[in-house]
Amino acid sequence: MKGLFITIEGPDGSGKSTQIKKLADYLEQAGHAVVLTREPGGTKISEKIREIILDKDNIEMDPVTEALLYAASRAQHVAEVIRPALKEGKTVICDRFVDSSIVYQGIGRELGIETVENINCIAVKNTLPHITFLFQLCPEIGLGRKTQQGEKDRLEQEALDFHQKVFEGYKGLKELYPDRIVVVDASRSIEEVHRDMVMAIEKRIKG
Amino acid sequence: MKGLFITIEGPDGSGKSTQIKKLADYLEQAGHAVVLTREPGGTKISEKIREIILDKDNIEMDPVTEALLYAASRAQHVAEVIRPALKEGKTVICDRFVDSSIVYQGIGRELGIETVENINCIAVKNTLPHITFLFQLCPEIGLGRKTQQGEKDRLEQEALDFHQKVFEGYKGLKELYPDRIVVVDASRSIEEVHRDMVMAIEKRIKG
Repeated sequence: MKGLFITIEGPDGSGKSTQIKKLADYLEQAGHAVVLTREPGGTKISEKIREIILDKDNIEMDPVTEALLYAASRAQHVAEVIRPALKEGKTVICDRFVDSSIVYQGIGRELGIETVENINCIAVKNTLPHITFLFQLCPEIGLGRKTQQGEKDRLEQEALDFHQKVFEGYKGLKELYPDRIVVVDASRSIEEVHRDMVMAIEKRIKG
Repeated sequence: MKGLFITIEGPDGSGKSTQIKKLADYLEQAGHAVVLTREPGGTKISEKIREIILDKDNIEMDPVTEALLYAASRAQHVAEVIRPALKEGKTVICDRFVDSSIVYQGIGRELGIETVENINCIAVKNTLPHITFLFQLCPEIGLGRKTQQGEKDRLEQEALDFHQKVFEGYKGLKELYPDRIVVVDASRSIEEVHRDMVMAIEKRIKG
């Protein structure tokens, strides 16, 4: 694996999309061949899996089924898109990755961090991010922003209590993976957040 | 778990369906409340997952994705059908279960037995069969029988080499799980096979 693998994590509405675009522009100007992706990553099979996960009719879905489907979608995304790009030396920026499952299924659905780690370890093998930006924002602000953007899918419809658990889960990720995770205070201005991300990446590349 | 959980494994065309019906009739007459099921088990979500797995257009499917999808489908089947039935004290007979994944994905796709065991351990939790009948038949005979039954799905289309690995994999299952697995020579008459299965179950019930 020659390329740099960057993931962005954090609650909905925390400004991830805006920052990812800015970061991709910056890195391209700095000479990186950037691959911008997000799960399900544009792979046909992952999209089909995702449709099952997010279908509002599937209210009877077991939490274990949900976790395994996310992992299956991710395995295909890694095999078709991420791993080949990294092998070619490209810089991959992925909007959400394994940590989202750790937090949503492991903590939110109470499957346990270890169970979700085990499933995802099999799904991605050794293709893990070099650096992960964790956007922090309290859930009331994030959900408020998101609601203005239109209809919610099955996960977004969950009660605030679920999102509160997810929020606490995100806070705990830094302790779990201190070397990889960079915490970003997402309540600040776009420029401030961008500057922090660039600094962290340059430190990682030099370091 | 009060009920008895029986699974039937073995290559396509080895006569599993015929024997399952005969066994269900026998057990019902002996006073069991029998639930006859097979993956994807008639659950809506499992059916949708299965469609993705067996779709002949999905030739780019990664073996890890395939194994995770089978496990997701199974997790839902267990949660919705098998576990509730066993809790009510019913006897569940399932056509194929975890061992099929061990053999097809673990050995056939060369993912490794341990990897497939780990995924499935998460999928089914503690809901494992009390007794598993392993139908043995060399693949040439099994595939020959099956071909006469109509069009093949994605897995059935695999080369004979793949099915040979699966055949060898099935032979090894007895060594892996000696307490649970009962080997059945499926080349014999319907009555002979049935008699052996009944004897094994009665022995298991008497303990």
